Amino acid sequence: MSEKETKPIRWGMVGGGRGSQIGYIHRSAALRDNTFELVTGAFDIDPERGRGFGVDLGLDERRSYPDYRAMFAEESTGADGIEAVSIATPNNTHFEICKAALEHGLHVVCEKPLCFTVAEALELKALAQARGLIVGVTYGYAGHQMIEQARAMVKNGDLGEIRIVNLQFAHGFHSAPVEEQNPSTRWRVDPKFAGPSYVLGDVGTHPLYISEVILPHLKIKRLMCVRQSFVKSRAPLEDNAVTLMEYDNGAIANVWSSAVNAGSMHGQKIRIVGSKASIEWWDERPNQLSYEIQGEPVRILERGMDYLYPQARLDDRIGGGHPEGLFEAWANLYRRFGLAINGSRGLAPEGIENLVFPGIDAGLEGVRWVENCVRSADQGGVWVDYG
Amino acid sequence: MSEKETKPIRWGMVGGGRGSQIGYIHRSAALRDNTFELVTGAFDIDPERGRGFGVDLGLDERRSYPDYRAMFAEESTGADGIEAVSIATPNNTHFEICKAALEHGLHVVCEKPLCFTVAEALELKALAQARGLIVGVTYGYAGHQMIEQARAMVKNGDLGEIRIVNLQFAHGFHSAPVEEQNPSTRWRVDPKFAGPSYVLGDVGTHPLYISEVILPHLKIKRLMCVRQSFVKSRAPLEDNAVTLMEYDNGAIANVWSSAVNAGSMHGQKIRIVGSKASIEWWDERPNQLSYEIQGEPVRILERGMDYLYPQARLDDRIGGGHPEGLFEAWANLYRRFGLAINGSRGLAPEGIENLVFPGIDAGLEGVRWVENCVRSADQGGVWVDYG
Amino acid sequence: MSEKETKPIRWGMVGGGRGSQIGYIHRSAALRDNTFELVTGAFDIDPERGRGFGVDLGLDERRSYPDYRAMFAEESTGADGIEAVSIATPNNTHFEICKAALEHGLHVVCEKPLCFTVAEALELKALAQARGLIVGVTYGYAGHQMIEQARAMVKNGDLGEIRIVNLQFAHGFHSAPVEEQNPSTRWRVDPKFAGPSYVLGDVGTHPLYISEVILPHLKIKRLMCVRQSFVKSRAPLEDNAVTLMEYDNGAIANVWSSAVNAGSMHGQKIRIVGSKASIEWWDERPNQLSYEIQGEPVRILERGMDYLYPQARLDDRIGGGHPEGLFEAWANLYRRFGLAINGSRGLAPEGIENLVFPGIDAGLEGVRWVENCVRSADQGGVWVDYG
Amino acid sequence: MSEKETKPIRWGMVGGGRGSQIGYIHRSAALRDNTFELVTGAFDIDPERGRGFGVDLGLDERRSYPDYRAMFAEESTGADGIEAVSIATPNNTHFEICKAALEHGLHVVCEKPLCFTVAEALELKALAQARGLIVGVTYGYAGHQMIEQARAMVKNGDLGEIRIVNLQFAHGFHSAPVEEQNPSTRWRVDPKFAGPSYVLGDVGTHPLYISEVILPHLKIKRLMCVRQSFVKSRAPLEDNAVTLMEYDNGAIANVWSSAVNAGSMHGQKIRIVGSKASIEWWDERPNQLSYEIQGEPVRILERGMDYLYPQARLDDRIGGGHPEGLFEAWANLYRRFGLAINGSRGLAPEGIENLVFPGIDAGLEGVRWVENCVRSADQGGVWVDYG
Repeated sequence: MSEKETKPIRWGMVGGGRGSQIGYIHRSAALRDNTFELVTGAFDIDPERGRGFGVDLGLDERRSYPDYRAMFAEESTGADGIEAVSIATPNNTHFEICKAALEHGLHVVCEKPLCFTVAEALELKALAQARGLIVGVTYGYAGHQMIEQARAMVKNGDLGEIRIVNLQFAHGFHSAPVEEQNPSTRWRVDPKFAGPSYVLGDVGTHPLYISEVILPHLKIKRLMCVRQSFVKSRAPLEDNAVTLMEYDNGAIANVWSSAVNAGSMHGQKIRIVGSKASIEWWDERPNQLSYEIQGEPVRILERGMDYLYPQARLDDRIGGGHPEGLFEAWANLYRRFGLAINGSRGLAPEGIENLVFPGIDAGLEGVRWVENCVRSADQGGVWVDYG
Repeated sequence: MSEKETKPIRWGMVGGGRGSQIGYIHRSAALRDNTFELVTGAFDIDPERGRGFGVDLGLDERRSYPDYRAMFAEESTGADGIEAVSIATPNNTHFEICKAALEHGLHVVCEKPLCFTVAEALELKALAQARGLIVGVTYGYAGHQMIEQARAMVKNGDLGEIRIVNLQFAHGFHSAPVEEQNPSTRWRVDPKFAGPSYVLGDVGTHPLYISEVILPHLKIKRLMCVRQSFVKSRAPLEDNAVTLMEYDNGAIANVWSSAVNAGSMHGQKIRIVGSKASIEWWDERPNQLSYEIQGEPVRILERGMDYLYPQARLDDRIGGGHPEGLFEAWANLYRRFGLAINGSRGLAPEGIENLVFPGIDAGLEGVRWVENCVRSADQGGVWVDYG
Repeated sequence: MSEKETKPIRWGMVGGGRGSQIGYIHRSAALRDNTFELVTGAFDIDPERGRGFGVDLGLDERRSYPDYRAMFAEESTGADGIEAVSIATPNNTHFEICKAALEHGLHVVCEKPLCFTVAEALELKALAQARGLIVGVTYGYAGHQMIEQARAMVKNGDLGEIRIVNLQFAHGFHSAPVEEQNPSTRWRVDPKFAGPSYVLGDVGTHPLYISEVILPHLKIKRLMCVRQSFVKSRAPLEDNAVTLMEYDNGAIANVWSSAVNAGSMHGQKIRIVGSKASIEWWDERPNQLSYEIQGEPVRILERGMDYLYPQARLDDRIGGGHPEGLFEAWANLYRRFGLAINGSRGLAPEGIENLVFPGIDAGLEGVRWVENCVRSADQGGVWVDYG
Repeated sequence: MSEKETKPIRWGMVGGGRGSQIGYIHRSAALRDNTFELVTGAFDIDPERGRGFGVDLGLDERRSYPDYRAMFAEESTGADGIEAVSIATPNNTHFEICKAALEHGLHVVCEKPLCFTVAEALELKALAQARGLIVGVTYGYAGHQMIEQARAMVKNGDLGEIRIVNLQFAHGFHSAPVEEQNPSTRWRVDPKFAGPSYVLGDVGTHPLYISEVILPHLKIKRLMCVRQSFVKSRAPLEDNAVTLMEYDNGAIANVWSSAVNAGSMHGQKIRIVGSKASIEWWDERPNQLSYEIQGEPVRILERGMDYLYPQARLDDRIGGGHPEGLFEAWANLYRRFGLAINGSRGLAPEGIENLVFPGIDAGLEGVRWVENCVRSADQGGVWVDYG
C-alpha cells in the first residue's frame, strides 16, 4: 500500500446522496489514498437536495447536477472534466446510466446488478470494448485480501482437485415484511425496480463472484434453482432461494441466497472442498481463512502474515491482528479500478499485470446467473443447461 | 437421572465384538445405570473369538454363541432368557437378524439402517406391532438433550412458522480412497453390504432423524437428490450427496451428506429457520444450542441450565458447564428404549408418557428417505414425489 | 481402550448417596469397563436412606453400612472383602476417613481436597507408603486426553522454553448468595466444613494440578495471593482469588479462581506460553487443544487423531470428532487408579510404566498450594516463599 | 455519521513519513470525512525524503518542513496556518514536540505515550489548560463503538456492581529477539527511546484506557506489578508484565501486558465482571460484545443494531453485520478530536456534550500507571499506593 502513486482520477457520482449508505462507502473507498478525486455529482433526484449535498462534500456548487444527463454533457469533456463515474442509483437505472456514461467516454464503476438481462450486459460490454473503457462492478466483499489468498491456494494446488463449492449469503433482516414500514427497502421487492429477482441478485451474486475469483477454471454446466417468497406479499420476487450447480469438471455447488435467515447478521460464507483440503471464509470475520487439510489440524490463517501468498499481501494497510473491515475491501477494489483505468490509458502502473477485479465480465456473469436461476425456478426447479 | 428404577432388562448382543467401536458404545450405553444387563452374545463370526470376548466381558462361557440363530433359539425362552437384543452387524444382515429376533419375541435395538427397503421395514413394523415388541434404532446423536430443547422450542412457537431446514453431516475422513488400505471400511462402499447408498444412509439419515424429532409436524412432499462418487472406485455408491426437499407446509430443506468434506471432523449441523428465530446445533459441541431471534443478540443456550424447557433436563447426569458427550447421548437413548420396553409390558414406568425415541418408524423413515433420494438421483436429480 | 483386562477390583464407597452428583460420577467412572466392582457402601449419614440406596444399586442389603467405621471393620478382610474405597463426603471428613481406610489396608480414591493441612497430607502419605497403598485424588478434568497431549508436547520441546502459565477456573454460579436459599451449597462457605478456603481449594486446585501434569519440571519458588469475598457473608472465605507465582526457571503463572465470574459456565482454561509456541485448553471443549506457533497459523488439535502423540491416544473410547465428555475423563482416571492398584500388588498390568494419575502427591500439593495462598492473602497479598 | 459538518481543521503532521504504518493510520483517520485537512508536515528526519513524501501526499512543496520547529514557526500563524498537529515520532520526542506545539497555540493529537513522566504530563496539561487547547492521545482501539456500548451498560447498571476487571494486551510477535534483525523495532527495547517500560506502556496502556472509559467511577487505590525480560537482551525493559490493582470500591483488576505471548495475534481482551453480569470484548472481533448475565444464555451483541444504547450508534458508518475495523475506530477518535477542537473554539458542534475521547488526562493517566507499575516492579513486585 502506498498512498500516492499517480495523479488522482477525476471522478463523479450518480446517486448516493445524503443518507445513502452505499454512496458513502463508494466515496470512502474511492477517495481513500487519493486514487480518485471527487469533482462532480448528480447525487439526488431532488436537484436542490443534491446540490446542497455536493456543497457539503466540498464540491464547486456549479458541479452538482440535477441529473446524470446534464452532468455527462458538461463534465465529459475539457481539461478538468471527469474521467470516471460511479453509479449508485436504483437497479432499474443502472443500464441506461452505464450506457450513457460509456457513450460519453467515461470509465464506469457500477453498483451490481450491472443491468437486468444478458442482452443488456453484452451491449454494455461491446460498448466498453469498442471505446477501450473500464467497467468495474462493486462486488465489494471480493476486495478482502483473504479472497486473494484463497485464489492463490487453489491455483497452487493446496486443495487438490476441487469437488464441492458451498456458497451462502443468507441474512435475516427481512424475515418480517419490513418493507411495509420502511419505504426505503420497498423497491427491492418490486420487479420494476429490482429486476427479475430479489435475493438471487441482491445477495447471491456476491459469493458467486467470489467463487469466480477463487475458481477461475470452473465453468457452470447446468443448474437448478428453487425460490420462495416466505413473506407472501413479495411474490413473484423471492426472499429465499437455493441453487445447485454442476461444473464441467464434475464439481458441484450449493448456493443459498436469503433475506429471511432469522437471526443471521450477514451469513456470507464460502467453503471450497478439494480432494486434499478445504478452505472456508466468512465475510463477518474477513481477516481469517480456515484451512483444513484432511488428517491435519485445522489452521486459521490471518491477514497480514508472512506465511500468506504474496497476492494476499498487496493491499495490506496495517499489520496482521489489526482488523481491516469492509471499507478497506472496497478501497482495495477502487484501487484496482484505478489501476485498470490508468492501465487502459497506457500509464502501465505497477501492479497492472495479474490484476484481479470485478469488471464487465463479472457484471455480465452475475446477470447471466440470475437469469438462469430464474429460468429454472420458474419451471418448478428443473435442471437447465447453463447459457 | 436416577441410577436404578427397575430391574435391569436381560439383554444380548449380535455383533459388536472385539475391536468394534460401535459394539463398545452399545454396551457402554445399555449398561450405564443398569438399564440393561448383558447376559449373552453372538459377538463375532469367528465363534472362538466371540466366545473369548464374551468371557472377557464377564459372561458365562456357555452363553456366548457362534451365531444369532443359536443364541435366539437358546436364549429367547426360560426365566433367565433375554428380553432384548441389540444388533451391531454389517448393514446387509440387519433385516434378517431383526426379523428373527422379533419372531423369537425379543425386543430389538438395531443399528441403522434398519434394512435396505421400505418393503422390508414395513414387514418388520408389522411383525413388531403384531407381537407388541419395541424396535429401537440407534440414531445416537438424537439422544443429546439439546435436541429435546429444540423440539420443545418449535412446539412452543419460539421460532414462529418453520421456513428453512438445513441439515448436514459432512465429514472428510474418506476424502481419499482409504478403503484401499483399510479393509474394515471397505464394506461401506460395496452395495452388497452397504445397501443402495453410502453417505445418504450412513450419515445423512442422522440429521434427517433429528429433524423429524424437532419438526414432527412437517411432512416431506417431494425431494430431489444428486449424488457423486468423487473417489471414482466407489461408484455406483456415492461419497457425497445433496438433497433438496419441500414440506407440505411450504418449508424447504437442504441436506448435505458427505464423507469427502476434507478437513471436517463430523460436520453434523442442523439449522432450523423460522419466521421469528432460528436455532442451530452442532454435534461436536452438543451441549450448546444457538438461538437467534431476528433483531436480538444471538443467545447460546447451555445444557443443564434452568432456563431450558423441562424436556431438555430429563436426562442430565451432571450440571451445566460440564460437557456431556456422545456416550451420554447413547445412554439416554438406551434409557428410553428401556422405558419403552418396560412400558410395552405394562410396567408403566415413570416418564413413559411423551417418550421420544427412535423406534420402528424412525427406522422405516430413514430407509424410505434413502430410497427416494436414490430414485431421484438415479434419474439425474429430478424432483420425485415423496413416497 | 479394552473393556476387560483383569478381574475387577472389589470396591466400596463412603458418601455419594442418593441425589449426590459427585457420587454418581464416581460410580459411573469406576464401573465403566469393569475396572472396579461395587460391593459395599456407607452412602449416607442417614443409615436407612443409605441402605435403600445401596439396594437400588444392586448391593447385597447387608453390605450397606451406617458408617465408614463399620464398613471398614467388616469389609477390609476376607476373600470377598473390598480392596479399595472411594471417599465422597464433605471436605472436613476426608482426612479421618482416608486415614482409617489406609489403616485398614485399603487403597483409596478421595475427593479433593485430600485434607486441610500439609501436616495431615504428609501423615497420609507416610501411611500409604508404609503400607504400599495407592491414594488417588479425583482431579477429574486431568483425565482428558488432550492434557496428555499437552504434557507430551512440552516434554518434546514443541513449545520451547516455558515462560508463562495462565490458569483459571472461574465460574459464575455463586455470583449471588445462592447458599442462602440452597442449603446444599452452604457448607462450601463455612470454614468448618470447607477448610481454610473456598474457591482456591474448590476450583483453583483443578487447573493447578493440570499444570503439574503438563509441566512436571517447573517448581514454584514464591507466590502471592489476594482473595476477596464479594458476597460479604462469605468472609473469611473467598469467592474470588488471584494468585501470581514464580517458578524456579524464571517462568511466571497467573491463577484466577472464582465463583463469581458472572455468566461464565466453567471458565476452566489453561494457557501455556513457551518461547516458540503456546497451547490453550478449555474444559468446556475438552476434545480440542489450540496450538499456536509464533508466526504460523493457529492449529486446532482434535482428540482421537493420528497426528497426536501416542500418550494422548491411550484412553480413546471412540474416534475423533465424536465428543467425549467429563464422564470419560473420570473413567480414564479410574482406569489409571485401577492400573496403579494392580501394579502395587505385583500384577504388572500393561500400561503401568509412565502412568500419570493424581496420586497422594497431587493431593498433598493441592493442600500445600492453598496453604501458601492463604498465608500470602492473609498478610495482605505479600510474596511468600513457597513451602 | 455525516460526511461534512463543518469546515475541515487545518492540520499538519510531525513524523509518520514514508513507510510508517502509524503515520498512515493517522492520516487515514483524520482525512476521513474531511474532519481535518492536511496542509503541512515535517514527516521525516531526512528532510529530502520528508519533502518528497509530502509532495506525494499532494502538499505544497514549501509546506514540507525539515523539522517540527521550522514547521511550527511558519505554520502556527496566518490565515491558512494550521490549527492542529499530530505527532507520530519516537516516544522520546513526544514531550518536547507536544510542548512546542502547545506553546505555538496548536491543538495536538499525540501518539501514546504522551511523555515519560507524570511531571511532564502535568506540565503539558497545565500548558494546554492555560491556552484552552485540546490534546488528544491516540488510544485508537477505544474508538470502537462497542466500547461506548460497554460504557453505557455499566452506567445503566446492567452489570450490577463492578467486581473484577481483566485486561490484557498480549501478542506474540516479539517472542524471539526480532529486534536483532529488524532495526525498526529496536527502539522499543531501548530505554532512551522507549522510556521506562516496553510492554506496560506500549500495549498495557491501551486496555487500561478502555477500562477508564467503561468504568469512569473506579479509582485505583493500590497496585503491584511484576515484569520480566524473557528475551534477556531486553533488560531492563520488560517484554511481559502482570499488574494487579485494587480499586477504591473493592473491585480488583488483573492486567497482562505482553509481547511474548507466542502465537497470539493481538490478544487485547477486556472482561468486566459485575454482580449481575459480565461483558467481554476482543479487539480482533471489535464489532461484537459478549454479554453474560448470570443464569441466562450468553448474548452476542453486534455493532450497528437497534438494541444497542444510542451512544454506541453515533459513529456507525455502515449497517450491522458489515465489519468495521481499526481504521474506523481511529476515524471515530479523530472525529471526536475534531469536535473537541471545534468545541474549544466556541463552535458548539452537535455531539459536543458527553463527548468521550482520550484527552490530556488519558495521556497523563497512562504515564502515571506505567510509573506506578515500574515503581512496584523495581521493588520486587510489592504493593504500592497509587499516586
